Amino acid sequence: MKTRFQMVKEHHSKTFDTAVTEGKADSLSTPLCTLIKKTRHFFTSSACSGRIALIQSASKTTKQEDSFFGKWHSPVSFEEVWERVNTPVEREELWFVQQPFIFHIGTDTLENARTLLAVMKEAGIKRGGIMLCEEGKYLIEVTGTHNLNLPIKKNNQLLVSKEYLSLVTEEANRKMRENEKRLKKFEKLCKEKLG
Amino acid sequence: MKTRFQMVKEHHSKTFDTAVTEGKADSLSTPLCTLIKKTRHFFTSSACSGRIALIQSASKTTKQEDSFFGKWHSPVSFEEVWERVNTPVEREELWFVQQPFIFHIGTDTLENARTLLAVMKEAGIKRGGIMLCEEGKYLIEVTGTHNLNLPIKKNNQLLVSKEYLSLVTEEANRKMRENEKRLKKFEKLCKEKLG
Repeated sequence: MKTRFQMVKEHHSKTFDTAVTEGKADSLSTPLCTLIKKTRHFFTSSACSGRIALIQSASKTTKQEDSFFGKWHSPVSFEEVWERVNTPVEREELWFVQQPFIFHIGTDTLENARTLLAVMKEAGIKRGGIMLCEEGKYLIEVTGTHNLNLPIKKNNQLLVSKEYLSLVTEEANRKMRENEKRLKKFEKLCKEKLG
Repeated sequence: MKTRFQMVKEHHSKTFDTAVTEGKADSLSTPLCTLIKKTRHFFTSSACSGRIALIQSASKTTKQEDSFFGKWHSPVSFEEVWERVNTPVEREELWFVQQPFIFHIGTDTLENARTLLAVMKEAGIKRGGIMLCEEGKYLIEVTGTHNLNLPIKKNNQLLVSKEYLSLVTEEANRKMRENEKRLKKFEKLCKEKLG
């Protein structure tokens, strides 16, 4: 008979397979997720390899309702960003963000959760930890630290210059490359140590 | 005889008292740290209630060496930011950042670590978790999500307009107030539940 953990792992493995099949998994996070799927004691319940995004949001005085207006999981050309930025948005504000990778990894025992914390530490990942800690059910968040976050449009008026936006895109690309390096290091160590 | 945990707790309590005495503890984090100090099973090993800051940094191609060029633990007037921004910096870049609260809280048992995770969850804090998980030694990171992060000067040339910087300062102040609300909620729940 299957344990509860095995059933949960199977459920998340299927969800991941579907995301890959439907092209909804970002390609940079797929190797790590695949690797973790193949282990006996770990699974990923959510994964993002990091992104550069344009986010439109309603006035901050009302309930916050954010939505993506552009999203890239790897370095992006300024032309692509500029084209999107010049497309009118519906909501009051448009933000430029760069966010680090974030993974939620489940496991079955505290010992395995500890092993994962040790791998994070060895990879130089400073953010995250065990978020859910119940008998047979442990969930670990693993996230990078590279980020950018700034408003760029208000009521469809650009708040910054084209030159500045180009510099910010360059900076975001640089941070994405650093983010990828860290992720690859984590992936390598997971391969060696999670078995 | 004192346990190892009691000695560690005493050590961090003394460090905290010294920081308060020397005016090095930020005033908004002090009530929570004081409250945690008074519990039997918890201590804070580091604390920041959140901040708005100007950070100067060397070229990103060399080893990153950041240093504060301005720091405020509560909403700040634009005049104060503007005055600081117009002071020449030594390093290549100047960044405007707003960072959320971050606390590292130690405890003695896994059960107590779980209690703290439950308090975080109830307070609506989505980031953090158990980072160190050894027999008798548990360390939990508790951090907010509000943030801003953007470059504003390069080689002492301002990259954005005065109006934009004023808007960003306003936004940072708004995020600091949201951050404080969340922190106060966490503080209240810690008071009720950590005993």
